[in-house]
Amino acid sequence: MSAARHDEIPESELSEIYAFAIQLGKDAGTILLESLHERRRDDVDGEKQEIVEELVMEEKMNAVDIVTKTDNEVEEFIHASIQKRYPSHAFIGEETYSKGASKDYLVKNEPTWIVDPLDGTVNFTHSFVMFCVSIALVVNQKPVVGVVYAPLLNQLFSACKGKGAWLNEATKLPLLGSVGVGPIPKNAPSKCVFSCEWGKDRRDRPDGNLHRKVDSFLNMAAEVGGRDGKGGMVHGVRSLGSATLDLAYVAMGAFDIWWEGGCWEWDVAAGICLLQEAGGLITTANPPEDIQTSKIEDANLGGRLYLAIRPASGTLEETGRQGQERLVREVWRRVRTLDYTRPGVKA
Amino acid sequence: MSAARHDEIPESELSEIYAFAIQLGKDAGTILLESLHERRRDDVDGEKQEIVEELVMEEKMNAVDIVTKTDNEVEEFIHASIQKRYPSHAFIGEETYSKGASKDYLVKNEPTWIVDPLDGTVNFTHSFVMFCVSIALVVNQKPVVGVVYAPLLNQLFSACKGKGAWLNEATKLPLLGSVGVGPIPKNAPSKCVFSCEWGKDRRDRPDGNLHRKVDSFLNMAAEVGGRDGKGGMVHGVRSLGSATLDLAYVAMGAFDIWWEGGCWEWDVAAGICLLQEAGGLITTANPPEDIQTSKIEDANLGGRLYLAIRPASGTLEETGRQGQERLVREVWRRVRTLDYTRPGVKA
Repeated sequence: MSAARHDEIPESELSEIYAFAIQLGKDAGTILLESLHERRRDDVDGEKQEIVEELVMEEKMNAVDIVTKTDNEVEEFIHASIQKRYPSHAFIGEETYSKGASKDYLVKNEPTWIVDPLDGTVNFTHSFVMFCVSIALVVNQKPVVGVVYAPLLNQLFSACKGKGAWLNEATKLPLLGSVGVGPIPKNAPSKCVFSCEWGKDRRDRPDGNLHRKVDSFLNMAAEVGGRDGKGGMVHGVRSLGSATLDLAYVAMGAFDIWWEGGCWEWDVAAGICLLQEAGGLITTANPPEDIQTSKIEDANLGGRLYLAIRPASGTLEETGRQGQERLVREVWRRVRTLDYTRPGVKA
Repeated sequence: MSAARHDEIPESELSEIYAFAIQLGKDAGTILLESLHERRRDDVDGEKQEIVEELVMEEKMNAVDIVTKTDNEVEEFIHASIQKRYPSHAFIGEETYSKGASKDYLVKNEPTWIVDPLDGTVNFTHSFVMFCVSIALVVNQKPVVGVVYAPLLNQLFSACKGKGAWLNEATKLPLLGSVGVGPIPKNAPSKCVFSCEWGKDRRDRPDGNLHRKVDSFLNMAAEVGGRDGKGGMVHGVRSLGSATLDLAYVAMGAFDIWWEGGCWEWDVAAGICLLQEAGGLITTANPPEDIQTSKIEDANLGGRLYLAIRPASGTLEETGRQGQERLVREVWRRVRTLDYTRPGVKA
């Protein structure tokens, strides 16, 4: 990173920013919900149904990536709100970034808002509940505030450095965190719920990302002893179509493991804050050369390769962190190296 | 089926049964939700969190199938309620059935309630939103009432023969049905959201169900032209860990395709009612010998092999049904035959 290290934000200012981000997430989620309802407005008696507005879709990359009008509107709303309140802060939004030619990593050390106005766009266009808005503030490359709001699920995840991670501001459901989700199971990944995504790279090359992913999924799923000893017999395999929600669900312990390559900083910045404040661990998806002893370092925000492990309590035999690291190595042992390079960024 | 054809239930009685089933679903869902909250009760100020009650889990088959105390309690509640109101009706519940030795298909032609008190048990134990109660009334092997309630999602799906299919009794979101979800895309399964589950059979045999499933998933996902021409380039691949919700989401058009083998009548009975009343199609997962011209028949309720296609409107070139049948054949062309046999039941 070229920029100098930026001063930490004082605690009192951070609290204000956190409250602002939560309200911004709620407002953005409301816009998403209104747009959804506008698309299919029903007569109350159910006699007739009118398509009020067709979605404007634009193909970005083969048939998978859809951009809706809503994405752009919500990003503009969030951007304008931030500019008004924090004019000195930098801003990176998924829509604005994607329109540019560069795939460079643009996050400097100064306070930078990283926003995905609508993650899970395909779900959104299908009225499937798994979509959300994701808002993060990153300082010195570390997410210090994270808000993920899935309005149709009525789930608002929020976290602020030093203040913990919360679900629906703790009014309705368990707060996120290491209390309550228990230690990492002894024979993990057995008994773990494994979250993964098929992604957009669907090229049918024997050594391409699609096959590397599917081989890895199979190793995680197959019976213990199968797949030449790599069988992980995970409890369940989940694919939601939203990296942001995958990560939020790992933070709350709904999933134990999320392993993914190919997504971007706006997909994970808020989720990383949630996960780390809850006591979870995030590192790179790609196994290092020495799986058993390699130091487990935090994932690079722009590295596009992520392995997240849920918060965990300790046992008499190991600390929570030791359990998590044991699981990281068990996952690395079963997954293949993915190929998502990026100019100037170390995976 | 050995039993004689049973008289149809008169319309007035069916309306009463439908209202009863909806209320029963709501009550059962409330018990599920209470049980979930009881497990992790938070102090409102977030200072402390107390584990009030540990889940009693019992392993049924390897590590995947969990039975909770809640399953049994909810099934008993539903069974008792039905016995009191409709003492002449038969009852098959997932928990009761699973405790028996027989894997026979027990549904006769008389009115039979088929109930899964908690579908998505692993999700439930992880506080992940994708769990539900499923209640169906089946007469002459056909589901005539279906209620699926996912309490944490606040989504109640309901359908009754001749009365359509509804989401939250149409007060909050689009009613289910063919209006609004559009025709089947021209190059389907491209642009379709494909829903599938990894299931419990994880044996690592080259010709076992796990590999047959994964080959099929890969064909559906890979780029057009890939996989020796079988690449389907679906828009997204989703795995929720709840067959019942998969089917409900196909009924509402959130998913376009659900393809699955290995689940049971209580997983699908209510969902089939939802799907058919909404205008969807359900047939067997296993491709017939003549994929292109074979008659497309309704799935056998106890056949354990299901392929569901969402409701579809027609175009100038084809009716909605023709579009759905085209998609069935496109899926059959890409999937492998699954092996889930059952005493006395034709797949």
